[in-house]
Amino acid sequence: MPTDVPGGGPGFDDGLPPLVDHHCHGVLRHEPDPGTFAGYLTESDRPPAAGTTFFDTQAGFAVRRWCPPLLGLPAHCPPDRYLARRRELGPDETRRRLLGATGIGAYLLDTGLPGDLTGPTETAEAGGGSGFEVVRLETLAERTAARAHDAEEFTDALARAVQDAAGTAVAFKTVAAYRHGLALDPAPPAPDAVRTAARSWIAAGAPRLTDPVLLRHLVWLAVATGRPLQLHTGFGDPDLRLDHADPALLTDLVRATADTGTDLVLLHCYPYHRQAAYLASVFPHIYADIGLTLTHTGPRAAAVLAEFLELAPFGKLLFSTDAYGLPELYVVGSALFRTGLAAVLGAWTASGAWSETDARRVGAMIAADNARRVYGLAETARAGGPAAAGP
Amino acid sequence: MPTDVPGGGPGFDDGLPPLVDHHCHGVLRHEPDPGTFAGYLTESDRPPAAGTTFFDTQAGFAVRRWCPPLLGLPAHCPPDRYLARRRELGPDETRRRLLGATGIGAYLLDTGLPGDLTGPTETAEAGGGSGFEVVRLETLAERTAARAHDAEEFTDALARAVQDAAGTAVAFKTVAAYRHGLALDPAPPAPDAVRTAARSWIAAGAPRLTDPVLLRHLVWLAVATGRPLQLHTGFGDPDLRLDHADPALLTDLVRATADTGTDLVLLHCYPYHRQAAYLASVFPHIYADIGLTLTHTGPRAAAVLAEFLELAPFGKLLFSTDAYGLPELYVVGSALFRTGLAAVLGAWTASGAWSETDARRVGAMIAADNARRVYGLAETARAGGPAAAGP
Amino acid sequence: MPTDVPGGGPGFDDGLPPLVDHHCHGVLRHEPDPGTFAGYLTESDRPPAAGTTFFDTQAGFAVRRWCPPLLGLPAHCPPDRYLARRRELGPDETRRRLLGATGIGAYLLDTGLPGDLTGPTETAEAGGGSGFEVVRLETLAERTAARAHDAEEFTDALARAVQDAAGTAVAFKTVAAYRHGLALDPAPPAPDAVRTAARSWIAAGAPRLTDPVLLRHLVWLAVATGRPLQLHTGFGDPDLRLDHADPALLTDLVRATADTGTDLVLLHCYPYHRQAAYLASVFPHIYADIGLTLTHTGPRAAAVLAEFLELAPFGKLLFSTDAYGLPELYVVGSALFRTGLAAVLGAWTASGAWSETDARRVGAMIAADNARRVYGLAETARAGGPAAAGP
Repeated sequence: MPTDVPGGGPGFDDGLPPLVDHHCHGVLRHEPDPGTFAGYLTESDRPPAAGTTFFDTQAGFAVRRWCPPLLGLPAHCPPDRYLARRRELGPDETRRRLLGATGIGAYLLDTGLPGDLTGPTETAEAGGGSGFEVVRLETLAERTAARAHDAEEFTDALARAVQDAAGTAVAFKTVAAYRHGLALDPAPPAPDAVRTAARSWIAAGAPRLTDPVLLRHLVWLAVATGRPLQLHTGFGDPDLRLDHADPALLTDLVRATADTGTDLVLLHCYPYHRQAAYLASVFPHIYADIGLTLTHTGPRAAAVLAEFLELAPFGKLLFSTDAYGLPELYVVGSALFRTGLAAVLGAWTASGAWSETDARRVGAMIAADNARRVYGLAETARAGGPAAAGP
Repeated sequence: MPTDVPGGGPGFDDGLPPLVDHHCHGVLRHEPDPGTFAGYLTESDRPPAAGTTFFDTQAGFAVRRWCPPLLGLPAHCPPDRYLARRRELGPDETRRRLLGATGIGAYLLDTGLPGDLTGPTETAEAGGGSGFEVVRLETLAERTAARAHDAEEFTDALARAVQDAAGTAVAFKTVAAYRHGLALDPAPPAPDAVRTAARSWIAAGAPRLTDPVLLRHLVWLAVATGRPLQLHTGFGDPDLRLDHADPALLTDLVRATADTGTDLVLLHCYPYHRQAAYLASVFPHIYADIGLTLTHTGPRAAAVLAEFLELAPFGKLLFSTDAYGLPELYVVGSALFRTGLAAVLGAWTASGAWSETDARRVGAMIAADNARRVYGLAETARAGGPAAAGP
Repeated sequence: MPTDVPGGGPGFDDGLPPLVDHHCHGVLRHEPDPGTFAGYLTESDRPPAAGTTFFDTQAGFAVRRWCPPLLGLPAHCPPDRYLARRRELGPDETRRRLLGATGIGAYLLDTGLPGDLTGPTETAEAGGGSGFEVVRLETLAERTAARAHDAEEFTDALARAVQDAAGTAVAFKTVAAYRHGLALDPAPPAPDAVRTAARSWIAAGAPRLTDPVLLRHLVWLAVATGRPLQLHTGFGDPDLRLDHADPALLTDLVRATADTGTDLVLLHCYPYHRQAAYLASVFPHIYADIGLTLTHTGPRAAAVLAEFLELAPFGKLLFSTDAYGLPELYVVGSALFRTGLAAVLGAWTASGAWSETDARRVGAMIAADNARRVYGLAETARAGGPAAAGP
């Protein structure tokens, strides 16, 4: 019986409000084969090394800790047995059981990844919550280019597409870290430079977008809408060069956007989460996210969360799961957040460093209140404004 | 009742000698309004984000933990109540009560910051200790330039001013990290280059000094005096680019100064404190400081101190508060150091990793003995040499 | 009595298999004088700062914790008393007693360091284990150059020497981090470029090899053999610039070697061990090592090991001591690994995060099984293949 889990497992009675998962992805509609399942436990896009398995990772162990009991199996049962039970239940029932145990009340879902994945509303419904869309800028640009006849049409259509998305989505996201690295020229590119870059890119058949001028153009189009912009920082799949994803490299862009009124949310951050927390502490419009990081660090989630909480102002840190493909990752992300938070704040109140009142208040801020404020979710709900687009 | 505090709160009976605060600043002579007070709880120079307050930070929570009891209020009382009580007592009585509870015996005070701040002696007297001056090089240069008629007069006067300061101050400090970043050319600039740079700077009206040639010239003038040189590294206000303040960037300057006989003290260091500890472990003349870092990490102070103590030789780590503006920051800096140190060394002796005799000895080294040796304080006291200049 | 030590001290009964120390060095055949002994406790190549001693470090305290009882003295006895007892026993008996207490069953020994040091077999015999050779590429190149009459003869002889070494050694090692830094051009150098570089180097008398073309040539010669290649990363002696030894700088070389079938093992890694663990998590052929790091962080070994285990897949992390010069460093490296591992995995099983079965399995993987698989030790033993060369 875990000793660090309020309530003894997912299901939790830790006094937190329904969580706002401010950055996540759809899950597979179909049943994955074992290799596909294991592939979602890692950020690697390659096979495991000979003699190893992706189940032998913190993410793999965390799935085996938290998920089997939700499907009627003992914690830590072998992967094969778990996968067999999963197949028996089928993808819909599995999704319903797993998402239903997370306590997530709002899903802000990045719809820019390929695959047969559930959309914002569909994901949220399985979990009994509300869905909202986060629009990935590079995907939007690539889709827009696919429909454009020339660069002029593309740039016009792109401006409209970003504007339209701002009317329905709650935020934008950029993966410039993957496409170029974060050491971007901070200034908005001149219209001429955008046109030239667009012409070259369209002429080349609009392959995967890596042009730094167009990446910057997307960032500034999004910033102009006033919707919060999520930026991938820190670790991710091996497309990325880790040292080029240090959020400190964004400092000049952070300065350049300081007076726009638009908030920037630094996603993931690890292992540069102390750098991200620093930026959040000195720039009013910068926020930091714990998603992905807690999922992949397992029983170290409390320690890593505590590192975030060294410099990050308590109104600047946001919960997410960054779950992708497997509903299991929603379970793991939320369970590790809940148990990590309880461990950290419990220790701090026990030592007298924090009062219990403050600890409860800060827990709710990170779990939900900060995200509701940054993304305007409460107003949204009242005004009947942005809500999940698509299924 | 805190469980990790020997003696239950400031007042402490932890067996440490009177602390040497080898890097600190003056405190406000007047009563700050609430916004000004809150502004000293953060390294940000901007307003808090909408919906947030600087009290919702580790520094804010630490002030509310440690300071209210010293003014007759319960720990963790609301900020408004604390500030009202502070106004009731007035700035002098508040300062006396707070500084009197720190157990600091010597204040090495950087006098280069603007504002109506207490000087070294004035600060020390409120706390019942001795004051010493640390001269900030960039401020000295800017003040010298303001009185010089041309570049030649400036460079001559600057050389004299540094020399004079070495006669009364116990150390110099550079904030080149803010003005240019730490990736400085390590060699002393040639006299011609200094003259050229000085001419340009004086001709421009000697604005805030950011010229790398003049910054390096200041460093080498200071090194030539033999007085220890403190260097800002790591986090600070948003003037600074964090990744340009990694102390590892100083490696070439460290090598260039290795045979000068002058010690370099790396201030703050976070989040690059492991890098700073490494430099202190391989270069005899390099020291590392925990100031600012513990204050801003609250209940994580023990963990961060432990990270410093991975590679830092025990004779190379120095306590400071880096307190500035508020006497509260002296309380927090010293209390977090004392409780953090007790937690770390207590755990290490309990496990048998360290003997109790060694733990007591190392505690005293970090708290006071290392600083006394590096800054020559014992000899100074005997010789009637450098002491606080000004009030 | 230490509370975190299964069995109460070296001798251990922690259920681990005989350890495979996949990266270590010979120890002094003669009795070192006190200054020489202390010099092996630090990565510094300079004298200690005035008023300090290298015994006042985590490595020094760890030696005093673990080694005196093995020579019949109380833990934490003063250095002088320990050194006197050591002299009394003599180097052979000291070595036998200390190595015999480590539980190391296989020594993969880098023979590229100068000095009167024990070889693989000699070291292993003192500890009751088997010895294997790791060939340091830069030393091999410098020795080959010393025997070559011209650049052509050198490049031919070098290719043969690497090929020959691959027949007897279990791995290669590069210290390019020291000689140039890890930001190397990832591509194999063209034959012409190698010839030109070799000519310049030989013409200059073949001094310490720092030419980046020749360093890359060595890396690719080694990679071509299929033997695992160990790369120094992270901290080391002050020859090295720490920020140029961040393993993330190897990303392009990692990509360039991804399809060669050769494994790369990132040594030491600290303080960039989270970066190294990330690389091991996304690239199948990348492994990470804890050696040197645990030895120098003392009671923080558990915390640092836990940081490695955030992202590192459990099949990708390898135990070593990186012991050098003193048999004491074998004791400290293995004791800190054993106690650190027991502390970390014990906490994770106690909380329910890991099952006990998994914890035992993963412990054995890091201690021995991963290294046996990567270096082909089991097959080697069966085939009578690579074994220790020289004494």
